[in-house]
Amino acid sequence: MDYLSLIDMDTALSLVRHHIPPLTGRERVSVGAACGRVVCADVAAPYDVPSYPKAQMDGYAVSSTDLYGASDATPVRLSLCGAAHAGDEVRRSVTSGTCVYVATGAAVPDGADAVLMREDAGEGDDTITARAPVLPGQHIMRPGYDIGAGTVLVRRGTRVTPRLVALLAGAGVSEVSCFPRPRVAVFSTGTEVIDPSCPPAYGRTHDANGPQLCAALAALGAVPVPRGIVPDDRASLAAAVASAAGHDAVILSAGVSKGHRDHVLGALSDAGCEVHFHGIAVKPGKPTVFATLSSVPVFGLPGHPVSCYTLFTLLVRPAILALSAMENPLRTACYPLAKRLSVPVGRRQYLPVRIADGKAVPVFRGSGALSSLMDADGFAVLDVLDEYLDEGDVVKVVLLDE
Amino acid sequence: MDYLSLIDMDTALSLVRHHIPPLTGRERVSVGAACGRVVCADVAAPYDVPSYPKAQMDGYAVSSTDLYGASDATPVRLSLCGAAHAGDEVRRSVTSGTCVYVATGAAVPDGADAVLMREDAGEGDDTITARAPVLPGQHIMRPGYDIGAGTVLVRRGTRVTPRLVALLAGAGVSEVSCFPRPRVAVFSTGTEVIDPSCPPAYGRTHDANGPQLCAALAALGAVPVPRGIVPDDRASLAAAVASAAGHDAVILSAGVSKGHRDHVLGALSDAGCEVHFHGIAVKPGKPTVFATLSSVPVFGLPGHPVSCYTLFTLLVRPAILALSAMENPLRTACYPLAKRLSVPVGRRQYLPVRIADGKAVPVFRGSGALSSLMDADGFAVLDVLDEYLDEGDVVKVVLLDE
Repeated sequence: MDYLSLIDMDTALSLVRHHIPPLTGRERVSVGAACGRVVCADVAAPYDVPSYPKAQMDGYAVSSTDLYGASDATPVRLSLCGAAHAGDEVRRSVTSGTCVYVATGAAVPDGADAVLMREDAGEGDDTITARAPVLPGQHIMRPGYDIGAGTVLVRRGTRVTPRLVALLAGAGVSEVSCFPRPRVAVFSTGTEVIDPSCPPAYGRTHDANGPQLCAALAALGAVPVPRGIVPDDRASLAAAVASAAGHDAVILSAGVSKGHRDHVLGALSDAGCEVHFHGIAVKPGKPTVFATLSSVPVFGLPGHPVSCYTLFTLLVRPAILALSAMENPLRTACYPLAKRLSVPVGRRQYLPVRIADGKAVPVFRGSGALSSLMDADGFAVLDVLDEYLDEGDVVKVVLLDE
Repeated sequence: MDYLSLIDMDTALSLVRHHIPPLTGRERVSVGAACGRVVCADVAAPYDVPSYPKAQMDGYAVSSTDLYGASDATPVRLSLCGAAHAGDEVRRSVTSGTCVYVATGAAVPDGADAVLMREDAGEGDDTITARAPVLPGQHIMRPGYDIGAGTVLVRRGTRVTPRLVALLAGAGVSEVSCFPRPRVAVFSTGTEVIDPSCPPAYGRTHDANGPQLCAALAALGAVPVPRGIVPDDRASLAAAVASAAGHDAVILSAGVSKGHRDHVLGALSDAGCEVHFHGIAVKPGKPTVFATLSSVPVFGLPGHPVSCYTLFTLLVRPAILALSAMENPLRTACYPLAKRLSVPVGRRQYLPVRIADGKAVPVFRGSGALSSLMDADGFAVLDVLDEYLDEGDVVKVVLLDE
């Protein structure tokens, strides 16, 4: 691959998509633990819900033909043969001329085809006086009305929400098959990089990318596997990459440019990777690398934290989501620019902006400045051939949802 | 409390808010595990970032006064005294007439006040020929430019995002003090209720509310403590409530109406709770109960899964978020109704709706129907004194984000 022949972002995205391995593997997950997981096979309702005719009101289970013509003027007397409450296991029955008291949620006895509201009858010791007729089926939820046995409750590729948990649990489904959560190895590279717990030292930089990438992966539902900091040394980097072959994806940050100490590209070759591109016509993120190690996607992201986060969001995140069959939910919207900007000719720029008073306000303080991202609500996509954009020019903004 | 004197939803919300205990307790959480947690004290930057003057380009660290007037026509020759790379621990210095090669990210040597871009000089074995002047500070990120020591990085009450993780880690903060995640006991009640793993049985209903509430609590960042199913028996219910006193909140579902088998209200009294209200003028959710056990908030929600989820979202969720100092991020928007509706006079109705073609389409199949919620994008808030709303009437919709 020629570093100088930059590809555009859309080509980069299709190349990455093309190299996402087919989804394999499944895990049985209890419904209580499935929230956020992605279902890997359609789930059909095993039973009718409700499984029995269920009273929807407090009242009397009757045969509707008994109450034909009942009214205040011509009430109908029925024998009262017991009461059924929600959870009662006794299977009762109603014959012509009799009724059974039913509480909301109780099983309606065999032989009854309607529930007369309590308010429409007078109750004696062992009789009731019905003062209204009933329609067949009245105030009864028939078996399978809510969910019929065999109905598809959830389709493959759906992410489980609390509401879906309720639907599955209420349908008597206690486990679902889910795609395994992708395990992603995360390396920070650079001889100057030190752990955040270390005191600052001359010429040293605290690792921001490793913790950031791990947090962003966890927020997507993936399992980050932090693999620490690797020095700028080709052999160490190659060994690190090779050791990560058992993961579902690998992300490295820094060391991807063409400087004396940028050994990631060489290390990828040494580790046996196939490099699919090195260099995207975007700012920031130009030196981004994408490779595969056997079939495992490997991303080399820029070292500046803003660049790293930008390329993670735009390029890596869709790939991680695709690894568990999830769609990429990034939202975009259009806003007028709050100020005139000069823009790089020939490279798409992703500029951190805050949305204020309906306008996109640039908040960029340099790719190396961590503070650039904190106020950003999104990245403005500047895709222009002119050298500047004017205040008020409308730009597309990729919105950050975290 | 008088069940018949219903209070309105806003009054219910203020009563709940009034009884949220003051936030106490703190936990030290490593930055890598802090995503989603809420910071309980402002965090100031312990160090300047960068902690040293940092080269922003590959080039030569020089004293700017040496290159005054340098140009192609009048180049300036400097002795080249070594090279500094990112991560080098040797502290170098530059004196008048000398320079040091610096790579991007390297510490700029003492005595140098600017970096001359590599492209603006010719390099010999131990000299360079500078062909351009430099401004003091050029291509150097001064100590503290990104983050000055003492700058507040994050305020109390902020939820940690991946970007904030990067800012904290990059500033050398490896742990933060967070509010403990609220632990919430969840009981389902009802003699008819069985675990989702049980086969269906005559008159029995699979528990949907328990798993749903636990999943929704976990999605908010709380710790659900599933406490199982309690039968409709006042003594068992009272014992269950009393046993949950050690949690930060308690939620029960079902058994809150005024039927023969609705024992939750009595059980709350028996357990020593103070009941603040029983009954809200809303549909669904009228029998909702709120009490405190010592200072622990206790919610009794309706048993129908749609009603339970509606009241959880509107009443309990803000309380759970307040327990960890988080704001309630529920969004609302206005949409025209897709069809004419009859509405209950005098009670605010929350109607599940789907948003399609910019209109609110009712998807309600009954409070007892689990399937009602699956297609819903939100709850339309119907707050009217008339008996119906027309197609095209604009209604407020509380949007569901999960």
